[in-house]
Amino acid sequence: MKIAIAQLNYHIGNFEGNLNKMLDATASAKEKGADLIVFGELAVTGYPPRDFLEFDDFIRTSEQVINKLSAASKDIAIVVGAPSRNPVIEGKDLYNSAYFLADGKIQQIEHKALLPTYDIFDEYRYFEPASSFNVVKYKGKKIALTVCEDIWNVGNENPLYTICPLDELKEQNPDFVLNLSASPFSYNHANNRIHVLKANIDLYGKPIFYVNHVGAQTEIIFDGGSIIMSPDGNIYDEFPYFEECIRIYDLIEVEKGGKNNEQNKNKITLIHDALVIGIKDYFAKLGLKKAILGLSGGIDSAVVAVLAQRALGADNVRVLLMPSQFSSDHSINDARALAKNLNIQYDIIYIEEVYKSYEKILKPYFNSTPFDVTEENIQARIRGMLLMAMSNKFGNIVLNTSNKSESAVGYGTLYGDMAGGLSVIADVYKTEIFEMARYMNKDTEVIPLHTITKPPSAELRPDQVDSDSLPDYKVLDGVLYQYIEKRQGPKELIEMGFDEKLVRRILKMVNRNEFKRAQLAPVLRISTKAFGMGRRIPIVGKYLN
Amino acid sequence: MKIAIAQLNYHIGNFEGNLNKMLDATASAKEKGADLIVFGELAVTGYPPRDFLEFDDFIRTSEQVINKLSAASKDIAIVVGAPSRNPVIEGKDLYNSAYFLADGKIQQIEHKALLPTYDIFDEYRYFEPASSFNVVKYKGKKIALTVCEDIWNVGNENPLYTICPLDELKEQNPDFVLNLSASPFSYNHANNRIHVLKANIDLYGKPIFYVNHVGAQTEIIFDGGSIIMSPDGNIYDEFPYFEECIRIYDLIEVEKGGKNNEQNKNKITLIHDALVIGIKDYFAKLGLKKAILGLSGGIDSAVVAVLAQRALGADNVRVLLMPSQFSSDHSINDARALAKNLNIQYDIIYIEEVYKSYEKILKPYFNSTPFDVTEENIQARIRGMLLMAMSNKFGNIVLNTSNKSESAVGYGTLYGDMAGGLSVIADVYKTEIFEMARYMNKDTEVIPLHTITKPPSAELRPDQVDSDSLPDYKVLDGVLYQYIEKRQGPKELIEMGFDEKLVRRILKMVNRNEFKRAQLAPVLRISTKAFGMGRRIPIVGKYLN
Repeated sequence: MKIAIAQLNYHIGNFEGNLNKMLDATASAKEKGADLIVFGELAVTGYPPRDFLEFDDFIRTSEQVINKLSAASKDIAIVVGAPSRNPVIEGKDLYNSAYFLADGKIQQIEHKALLPTYDIFDEYRYFEPASSFNVVKYKGKKIALTVCEDIWNVGNENPLYTICPLDELKEQNPDFVLNLSASPFSYNHANNRIHVLKANIDLYGKPIFYVNHVGAQTEIIFDGGSIIMSPDGNIYDEFPYFEECIRIYDLIEVEKGGKNNEQNKNKITLIHDALVIGIKDYFAKLGLKKAILGLSGGIDSAVVAVLAQRALGADNVRVLLMPSQFSSDHSINDARALAKNLNIQYDIIYIEEVYKSYEKILKPYFNSTPFDVTEENIQARIRGMLLMAMSNKFGNIVLNTSNKSESAVGYGTLYGDMAGGLSVIADVYKTEIFEMARYMNKDTEVIPLHTITKPPSAELRPDQVDSDSLPDYKVLDGVLYQYIEKRQGPKELIEMGFDEKLVRRILKMVNRNEFKRAQLAPVLRISTKAFGMGRRIPIVGKYLN
Repeated sequence: MKIAIAQLNYHIGNFEGNLNKMLDATASAKEKGADLIVFGELAVTGYPPRDFLEFDDFIRTSEQVINKLSAASKDIAIVVGAPSRNPVIEGKDLYNSAYFLADGKIQQIEHKALLPTYDIFDEYRYFEPASSFNVVKYKGKKIALTVCEDIWNVGNENPLYTICPLDELKEQNPDFVLNLSASPFSYNHANNRIHVLKANIDLYGKPIFYVNHVGAQTEIIFDGGSIIMSPDGNIYDEFPYFEECIRIYDLIEVEKGGKNNEQNKNKITLIHDALVIGIKDYFAKLGLKKAILGLSGGIDSAVVAVLAQRALGADNVRVLLMPSQFSSDHSINDARALAKNLNIQYDIIYIEEVYKSYEKILKPYFNSTPFDVTEENIQARIRGMLLMAMSNKFGNIVLNTSNKSESAVGYGTLYGDMAGGLSVIADVYKTEIFEMARYMNKDTEVIPLHTITKPPSAELRPDQVDSDSLPDYKVLDGVLYQYIEKRQGPKELIEMGFDEKLVRRILKMVNRNEFKRAQLAPVLRISTKAFGMGRRIPIVGKYLN
């Protein structure tokens, strides 16, 4: 049996686009002699469709797509993910289903049993879990159809659930397993995925075809990396990351095994490529082309500018250098040098005059109060204003350049440097930003070395450096990682050897700044715990603050 | 048996505050001869604790509070909601539990079975559902302990779930039902609640003591309105809305019934009072006092100013009038009259000079492009900037004045009039704002009548009125309500008689502006579907747009 695996970039709610992509892939696979083509989880709707699922109109449109795909399932079977209706009144209205289409008709619908409801996932909000399990019989083979999380409850590895679909299915002696996934990227996910697939092979000993999405849906990035695993536990094939790709396999060859085609996994390369596709798809899926950002001469905006240029092309990225009276000459020079290296349009707008006009109209109210964070924020907000003005006038979307460390502790100005339509690096810690900048320079010096080596500064008052207000970034990021990604509390952090006073200070900063993050643009997610939908902290909560 | 019902205002994560409140209530109830005192769902942690539940430290602290409450349960039993740990490895780590404390010890822990996972609720994210059900035996009575949603699956009314806890418990012949709730306010919720309680009485015929939270937790407002319902289906007592309150009942009297103490429920009064407590608690729970907002002379900012003054007191509310060259004299006069009526501090800052300084530095880039939305937004953003500057300098939190109709269609400026720490009326449609303004004026004219009667205008260009860009608010709100609250699609809306072209235009505006709402401050929730956590729409989604 020849099985085609289609790793595609779907678009939420774009039924026509998704359908056409799948019809093209089906025609091409059929031409190449495939017996079967497999698409991803909820491929018809895109993932995650979220509350669109509550609209009957949305479900009806999805059903129309399934009918059109069914009509195309002649001389080739199609396995595709889409919602299906729960026929009984009790329980949720929908299932998250894998449709088996053949001979021009829907032959069988199997449902997802394990519905992730953690981090960015809300599946139990919409779907009823499967309660029965049946293999699909096709051309003399028995296929275990599973959807994403269904294969993640192996043994005692993931005791989030009380059932295990493959335990149910193995009694029906399936010949191989198809897994339709929409499994979001984080920089260690590709390794976890292989680990889980191996655990399934150990238990069930059948070939697994794991089919993932690729591309970004607002903040959620899919890396692809679909995997064909042989019963010997070898990676018969691993698909490229961050690319659409269709390949056809002969089941007999996969069963034989003995091949290992695992890809390299370098953390910073993965993050870099994820952010590039994150920007690219945000623009493409919203029908936009052009970006703009402020270039300060610092490392954060430099890294975002490089990512934007790689995602959208030099012609579509514009930067503003907006020095104030506190900006150093080297900042302007570093920013200009970067813009030239990237071959992108740059303009220098001096903000001092506007700043003075604010000073003047606020003077009667501020009287002789000393220069404080207010005046710092005014500078940041003038820059936000100018970027938004260019955005409104010329249609360039503002990219936000806040990193994860500063977003965590609230070291940023709402409506100032926190402005923008997409937060490109707000899931990347400052220490990782340094690594990425060096990685970007690996072939030629794109980012001026001085930008990487000088002490980070917001330059909002004379001789300011970040270390005036923040702990050393290595220590800060260490605490933040344990607190945010690992949910370790103060007791655990102190036991790890972090200084108690520092720990309490950092956790307090994090928890007091939920109100700021609540207004941050969507954050491209590259870790297991990004700010946004996947991390839900009450703003008025009085805990550790 | 004498049963004390405590309707309290808890604070998420404020363990000490919540504990002291409950200890005081217990001591007072004991003094008055109560055998038992009942608090709300997750009263120990406050509701909803969200991802704080993922911190072991948070759960340990909650357990310490339970131990302290246990110690106080001498000569009085205490029923209180808190998380408890799932002792087995399979399934989620926690239960959402009702603790029965007596004789200084934890006597019994019963778990919530029906875990809401819709709208603002995410309970299945954290909790394992109960799988066994046991009455509590106390002083010769058998008590059915239930938590919130557990009593909402009556008959075929709410087939979201496949089990019904009271069906399980009735075999053990309970004498009465305790329901520990944290049931958020919406303007029709008090009626729904009574309807559901009556349905339970019809089925089980036992007295029900329904105990709710009161007060706001960021966007979620609890109205209280705890209910004691007799077996005859009469409302033996209904607690006041939006107030803490403790009352003691004799079980024998409740069983007799025949009393009806239902409260009045007027939609606009309820919304008004909800928004006042929403503002009040946002400030109180964040340890803040003072608010600031821009007063335009229009109805939205007028209504917010009145709400703020009623929530925080005249001394704690400051307003800025920020006319531009496009502001009409009547707007300034109306705004000033309102500020005087409210006896709040107001200042007039003319923004034209700052506006001109932006014009000047942008001129080289804008050249001779015509005046468009860019220049409108610059005005709105200068106002946002000035409010934030005052906020930074003096600590007043900016209140956002966007209403639901304009937030829905994106008729607002990011970082301009959409700025602020709390969106006070972004769940209130424009037509409801008019009703509320008239309600506020019912005794004396607080809001100048002209503010209510003149055509709404943003005054960002000469002679602008809202109706230049938006449909009539009655029609707009009609479509929005059906689409947002009722999840009706285009087909259904057209069948209802709305004009097809208009429907498609409105739905497109709503869906294209998710990116703006993603950056809106938390929205006080007064309807069944507010923008924010309870409505999850993908930004890059290509559906109906």
